[in-house]
Amino acid sequence: MNYKMLFRLCGQVLLLESAFLFLPLFISLLYGENASAAAFAGGLCIALFTGLFLVFVLSRGASGGFFAREGLVVTGLCWLIMSAFGAIPFVLNGDIPSYVDAFFEMASGFTTTGASIIHNVEEMTHGTLFWRNFSNWIGGMGVLVFLLAVLPGSGKETGFTLHILRAESPGPSVGKIVPRMKQTAIILYCLYIVLTILNIIFLIAGGMPVFDSVCHAMGTAGTGGFGVKADSFTSYSPYIQNVTTVFMLLFGVNFSIYYIIILKKLGQVFKDEEVRLYVLTVLAAGLLIGTNIRHMYGSWEETLRTSFFQVASMITTTGFATADYDTWPVFSKTLILLLMVIGACAGSTGGGMKCARVLILVKSLLRNIRKTIHPRTVHVLKINDRVISEDVIANTQAYFSAYMIIVAVLTVILSLDGFSIETNLSAALCTFNNIGPGLDKVGPTCNFAAYSDISKIFLSLAMITGRLEIFPILSLFSRSTWKKI
Amino acid sequence: MNYKMLFRLCGQVLLLESAFLFLPLFISLLYGENASAAAFAGGLCIALFTGLFLVFVLSRGASGGFFAREGLVVTGLCWLIMSAFGAIPFVLNGDIPSYVDAFFEMASGFTTTGASIIHNVEEMTHGTLFWRNFSNWIGGMGVLVFLLAVLPGSGKETGFTLHILRAESPGPSVGKIVPRMKQTAIILYCLYIVLTILNIIFLIAGGMPVFDSVCHAMGTAGTGGFGVKADSFTSYSPYIQNVTTVFMLLFGVNFSIYYIIILKKLGQVFKDEEVRLYVLTVLAAGLLIGTNIRHMYGSWEETLRTSFFQVASMITTTGFATADYDTWPVFSKTLILLLMVIGACAGSTGGGMKCARVLILVKSLLRNIRKTIHPRTVHVLKINDRVISEDVIANTQAYFSAYMIIVAVLTVILSLDGFSIETNLSAALCTFNNIGPGLDKVGPTCNFAAYSDISKIFLSLAMITGRLEIFPILSLFSRSTWKKI
Repeated sequence: MNYKMLFRLCGQVLLLESAFLFLPLFISLLYGENASAAAFAGGLCIALFTGLFLVFVLSRGASGGFFAREGLVVTGLCWLIMSAFGAIPFVLNGDIPSYVDAFFEMASGFTTTGASIIHNVEEMTHGTLFWRNFSNWIGGMGVLVFLLAVLPGSGKETGFTLHILRAESPGPSVGKIVPRMKQTAIILYCLYIVLTILNIIFLIAGGMPVFDSVCHAMGTAGTGGFGVKADSFTSYSPYIQNVTTVFMLLFGVNFSIYYIIILKKLGQVFKDEEVRLYVLTVLAAGLLIGTNIRHMYGSWEETLRTSFFQVASMITTTGFATADYDTWPVFSKTLILLLMVIGACAGSTGGGMKCARVLILVKSLLRNIRKTIHPRTVHVLKINDRVISEDVIANTQAYFSAYMIIVAVLTVILSLDGFSIETNLSAALCTFNNIGPGLDKVGPTCNFAAYSDISKIFLSLAMITGRLEIFPILSLFSRSTWKKI
Repeated sequence: MNYKMLFRLCGQVLLLESAFLFLPLFISLLYGENASAAAFAGGLCIALFTGLFLVFVLSRGASGGFFAREGLVVTGLCWLIMSAFGAIPFVLNGDIPSYVDAFFEMASGFTTTGASIIHNVEEMTHGTLFWRNFSNWIGGMGVLVFLLAVLPGSGKETGFTLHILRAESPGPSVGKIVPRMKQTAIILYCLYIVLTILNIIFLIAGGMPVFDSVCHAMGTAGTGGFGVKADSFTSYSPYIQNVTTVFMLLFGVNFSIYYIIILKKLGQVFKDEEVRLYVLTVLAAGLLIGTNIRHMYGSWEETLRTSFFQVASMITTTGFATADYDTWPVFSKTLILLLMVIGACAGSTGGGMKCARVLILVKSLLRNIRKTIHPRTVHVLKINDRVISEDVIANTQAYFSAYMIIVAVLTVILSLDGFSIETNLSAALCTFNNIGPGLDKVGPTCNFAAYSDISKIFLSLAMITGRLEIFPILSLFSRSTWKKI
């Protein structure tokens, strides 16, 4: 392990975070919340000085190779550090007095989970609200991808940058949009910023205040789902709800699709099997749930608006709500649990298993049936007319079992707090898939505050593990990670 | 598809079933239940004449190759046919008036699930009780393995016999105990009979009536779990409960282990990693649950007797109960759900994922962590000091995802009946893993009668799909299965 390089990168991440903290500090001053501003200034200083210490003292003379192992560890550590330091202002300004709660909230923010321990979000200061949703936005695209895009030092094209992009980007295989990694990162961030601004404009056009629009657009873009209202989107106008449905779905699509659209190869988009699966799943689930909950709403318009909003919110793992879906019939609730697991497209800001993985799993199940029937024939698995290598299939299957093992273990740990199995299972799925609200005691009208501190720490780790797709965090617990070469 | 050979084998299975039906017919006469005897005689005749028709008319001139495809299909079909014909006497003698219910009960019997739709089992005739438990016993070791052992015609050692053994025997890889398949089948059945007789003797020694002892021993041996009392084992003496705990655990061990013991290689047994995992899981779960439920029982003796009985019943997927574990704390209930999924050892009569598969999955998760840290090193996965081939690992992962996909789809289908998610999920797990009782509305004090007929048919199919480890049943739904070569 190259410790000096590790310290340097962690330090750079902290310096970046202290730069980010200027924004909520500025917002606090803008709204005349001076105590809150002081808290953000304090948090900023702590991050700044720790970052400087790491970069200029601990990592002096850093050099040498940085390989897969270091890439993994730095990704895992950075996300832990971002959450740990980002939580400090919440404790300082008194919005979240318990540090464990604040850490949970921040981990939930950066991992774009959107699970909360805050009882009444409308009592929070503007600085806190902004910082929560800004963390959604930053976390959506990835902290290190951002570093990659902005730092001149990391322009050098090494295997390491690919390792970071692979560790931070969701999906079974990482595609570089253009040959150079840094350009890819810049293109991704540009698309992300443009879409976010469009979202803000559409919300303001619907009469939402500017502050709320910015916060909600950031929460939507990162598929995070932190809101600024206690009832999430329930009391907003149908127009605003529909705009949000559309933007949630847009941010759940593989971002390289937008690059293809810009290149005017529109035909390719609808041939993409992952996009097709995503669109079909949304349509099918929206209609099925709509039919199932029709009797609970006044008109078909309201029913379908509500069902599609929830479907979009769940499959993209955003976690906004316009209805207490915990009161819906069991069939709809079961479909919602299933959408949580499926998740958005690979290469989007959303969480979950990812449609691409589901596609590989289902196709490989069908292939295995054919294989059992005709064991001597060669059966290949194709997606978008390209043969998927056995390696990718094996990795996907392995990822799925790792996923299930972790969810099972987490559910057992949570069960010690005594809530129902439905609560614990959905809490495990919701944090690990970076969704936010679950069912029953962690449903859309409740929150995670009732869990014990130990459970909250495990849930926070689950969020980060899920966001980084398991291995960067698990590798932190392996002895062989920390050996000197 | 070689249809004539297919008809012949299905016919032979029906003739075998009609022979089996002599036993409940005899029991009915013994207890003077003449109406019931007539019903069993009727069922016997229907099976007999259909079997004769298939063997001597439809399959006249059968010849030619019988390969993997035929092996799969015949296994899948035979189990469906056995359940379909075995259900007829229940309808004829009026014990289960609805045919769908009777089919569910029989599928539950042959697949050793032990899930029931009967409200008060103590009102049933002796013939019905015997036939239910006898189906547990037959199903435990496998119908076709039995055919293999007794029919002189199938003595020919072909790839086909291996395909059948592979389709019917649980576990990731099938071991022949001795080089010849027929001998292997005979040894397995001998061990099975000896252990069952021992179980009967121990139960009678504890004062249980002979009829009850025979029925319970058959239910234990097949890890089926049909009982003859409404409260399962609750009102039996501690001695009988403990004897049953021990025998359930014994029938959950890989049967080849007993052959090794007979060969006096005792040391090998405790070196077997699957057996170790099985024993450790039982001990750990028994103690954890015991500690968790201590306050509900009078003494440590009663607590541990109850917890170990339930742990043995769940991990071996038997499904007997000495307590309403649905009233236990959530931690214990979650562990019980987990035990259901883990299941017994491969090559035993138990269901579930099988310890061997869990071992492979966990070891491959750890290996994947090492692989991500050191991507350029070769990492092999060893069990019992033998390298597990990448093929077996890939198949296990594929099996696991097929398993989860089926459980998820089944849970969605069941949710249309409106019961809780806990009920549906545990019903799906319990039937698919061949356990029996689940949680909530399908808990140990309730039964499956409340589900709709459509759900019952899906649950019956799930039981057979689970018993045959997925592919023999799924392949029945593939078009390429039924093509002529």
